[in-house]
Amino acid sequence: MFVLGVDPGLSRCGYGVVTRRGGGLAAVAGGVVTTPPDAALPDRLATLAVELRALLAEYRPGAVVIERVFFQVNAKTAMATGQAAGVALLAAAEAGCEVAQYTANEVKQALVGYGSATKEQVQRMVASVLGLDAPPRPPDVADALALAACHLTTQPLRRAVAAATGASR
Amino acid sequence: MFVLGVDPGLSRCGYGVVTRRGGGLAAVAGGVVTTPPDAALPDRLATLAVELRALLAEYRPGAVVIERVFFQVNAKTAMATGQAAGVALLAAAEAGCEVAQYTANEVKQALVGYGSATKEQVQRMVASVLGLDAPPRPPDVADALALAACHLTTQPLRRAVAAATGASR
Repeated sequence: MFVLGVDPGLSRCGYGVVTRRGGGLAAVAGGVVTTPPDAALPDRLATLAVELRALLAEYRPGAVVIERVFFQVNAKTAMATGQAAGVALLAAAEAGCEVAQYTANEVKQALVGYGSATKEQVQRMVASVLGLDAPPRPPDVADALALAACHLTTQPLRRAVAAATGASR
Repeated sequence: MFVLGVDPGLSRCGYGVVTRRGGGLAAVAGGVVTTPPDAALPDRLATLAVELRALLAEYRPGAVVIERVFFQVNAKTAMATGQAAGVALLAAAEAGCEVAQYTANEVKQALVGYGSATKEQVQRMVASVLGLDAPPRPPDVADALALAACHLTTQPLRRAVAAATGASR
C-alpha cells in the first residue's frame, strides 16, 4: 500500500509517497506543488486540486495523510494554509481514500519519540526510517514523507488498539 | 446575471442568489448548507462541495462572492472556515465563474456606508436593498445575500474605475 503524505500550503504544497518494503519503509516519490503568487486565489486552488488529483490517480494511495495545522502567527498565511488543506482533504475524500491527520507534534512523537524534537532531528529520522543517505530536500518534501511514515509506523498500534476495543479503526 | 454569495462555514455555509430587477436588486434564492458535526472532516468537505456544485449548476451565476475571512478568536473554527472557503473557491473556479471576495467590513461599507455597522443594521439594509419586508433569516442567509448585493452595488463603480484606468476589471 502506498501512503501519500501532504504538507498543505498554497504557494508550496509538499507531498511524499511511502510504502512498506523489506520489513521497513521506503520513499517512492516526493515533490512540491507550487502555485504562482501572482495568480488569482481561486485559480491557485484549482491548480493545486488538479495536481493533487493527478498524484492520487498516479499512485492510488490506500491512505492520504494531511498535516493538521493550527493557527500560526501570520494570519494571512494561516488562512491560505487552511484553504489549501481544504482542497487536499476534498481531493482525498473524492478519490475514496482513507484520510488521516496528524499535528507536527504527533509526527515528531511518532518518529523521534518526543514532540519537541527539532525540524533537523525529524528530517534526520525521516532519512533513517526511509533508508536515505541524507534528509530529503526541500524541507516540504521531508515533512510530507514524515507524515506518511508516521502513519505507517503507528498503524500496527492503531490496529491493536482497535482490535482490543472492538472499534472498526 | 445571477450573483451567488457564500458565507463559508463547515457546519453551516450560507448562500444567497441576487439579481438586478427593475432598476434595483432582488433575492432569487437563499439557504444554508449544513454538514453533520459527527461526520469525518473529509466527508463533510465533500458534502459541501457537492451542494455548492449543485447550486452553481442550478443558478449558473455570473459571479460568486465569497466572504474573505480573517482569523477569529477560536482557532479551531477559523481553520474549519478556511477549509470550507477553500472548497467554495475551488468549486467556483472549476465552474468557470468570476470570483470576488469582500471582508465583512467592506460589505458593511458598501451597504450601510460605514464599516462599523452592526449586524442588525446590515440585515435591515439587506432587506431594504432587496425589497424584502423583513431581514432574511437565518443570519447566514442574510450575510450571503449581503455579499452578493455588495458585489452588484459596487459593480458600476468598479467598471468606471477600470474604464478610467484602462484595467480589464
